Amino acid sequence: MRLGLRYFFYISYKGTNYHGWQIQPNANTVQNEVNKALATILQANIDTIGSGRTDSGVHAKEQVFHCDISKDIPEVTLLQKMNGLLPKDIVVNKVLVVGMATHARFDATSRSYEYHIHFKKSPFGVNESYFLPNKPDFDKMNEACKILVGEHDFTSFSKVKTEVNNFFCDLQRAEWQFDDEKAVFYVTANRFLRGMVRALVGTLLQVGYGKTSLKEFTEIKKAKDRTVAGQSVPPQGLYLCAVRYPSEVFIK
Amino acid sequence: MRLGLRYFFYISYKGTNYHGWQIQPNANTVQNEVNKALATILQANIDTIGSGRTDSGVHAKEQVFHCDISKDIPEVTLLQKMNGLLPKDIVVNKVLVVGMATHARFDATSRSYEYHIHFKKSPFGVNESYFLPNKPDFDKMNEACKILVGEHDFTSFSKVKTEVNNFFCDLQRAEWQFDDEKAVFYVTANRFLRGMVRALVGTLLQVGYGKTSLKEFTEIKKAKDRTVAGQSVPPQGLYLCAVRYPSEVFIK
Repeated sequence: MRLGLRYFFYISYKGTNYHGWQIQPNANTVQNEVNKALATILQANIDTIGSGRTDSGVHAKEQVFHCDISKDIPEVTLLQKMNGLLPKDIVVNKVLVVGMATHARFDATSRSYEYHIHFKKSPFGVNESYFLPNKPDFDKMNEACKILVGEHDFTSFSKVKTEVNNFFCDLQRAEWQFDDEKAVFYVTANRFLRGMVRALVGTLLQVGYGKTSLKEFTEIKKAKDRTVAGQSVPPQGLYLCAVRYPSEVFIK
Repeated sequence: MRLGLRYFFYISYKGTNYHGWQIQPNANTVQNEVNKALATILQANIDTIGSGRTDSGVHAKEQVFHCDISKDIPEVTLLQKMNGLLPKDIVVNKVLVVGMATHARFDATSRSYEYHIHFKKSPFGVNESYFLPNKPDFDKMNEACKILVGEHDFTSFSKVKTEVNNFFCDLQRAEWQFDDEKAVFYVTANRFLRGMVRALVGTLLQVGYGKTSLKEFTEIKKAKDRTVAGQSVPPQGLYLCAVRYPSEVFIK
């Protein structure tokens, strides 16, 4: 049997109605929907591998998965057929052919997330941002962000139930941009631990509301203990926004 | 019995889950929700009068209604209690005391609407904008808009089933702003006829796609016949955005 070609699918989704990315037997997940659409188009069950999981209710502006397709079918046809079959809250933005050894998860060199907050109550996009009635001090939170950039052990910001061997992450960017109505936290790293962005945002908000000083924030990071950090913020503000790969994995 | 004070409520709502603004016996409407919340707060049935109707699925960034409240209750308390009781897709933004003879509908001097279109398929805000896969020629559509500004008979753009005596509207603004991903139609007039904005947008799109020339567009306007104009665009892109009143109606 011909193995065919390996494809990267760049997709975006609104996570509100899904129990996250990862396939689950008795729950509606994004991967379930993607697999169903591929099975309909290709008349075969196709294994898909995501760049990483997203939790229940978390969105993606850019998630990547790979799969092998033996049928000869142009990328643009795949894209159009997928968008015709998928529900409105999942969209395929790009389909690329990659080298057969390329892996959507293991070859990713960086991931970027955004966390969206709004302070002006609005009936629009209620599941696409987290509402906080009081604006915290973002300048102070950006001071705390400087403590996070670089390679550190992020145990204090990881869920305890996790399968990783070490808790080191290399943060290239951690920054809040804000105005009077909304704020966005931008964070990029080589990898993220389970629940890490939401724990970081929750702890940064404690700094912004004056409940945690910068010195205490540094100590929380050093403690390697999830119980000392702040409460996680809810999923509706979180977006997986970019997954980057070395350029050589893409077949021209 | 003391009549109390007349209040203006400035509200916004996402219309997706409502059969429009206007109260109806067996349908979920925005006015139903507002009346229910007021009844709970004031322990009395309160009549509310909106600045105008919005259709099923149409949104409001700013809708105004008035009502009389005899109970002595501060504006800020009313606002907070309402927002505590109303569903997430209806928000009270402002409560003001107005003169007892002020009428939310009859005293409005202008209304503004926006119609939102996007050309890049997205899983976010799917019910808050209209998706068109091909971008029309907005420069040409803005030429057609110039033909609309001023006082004209808009019969060609009104639903036939309507109770008005005349079809004259005075348009102060009709303009598209756009980039590569989205476009917004801004329109302001002293009054609007039933279905007018959606019929205008549908006909302007015909111009933008080269199906209707500017000369033909002028003739459609002059024809005073709804059947010659373009098809109405769907409700999810439409927003009532501002209702203006003379400053003297507001009690300082």
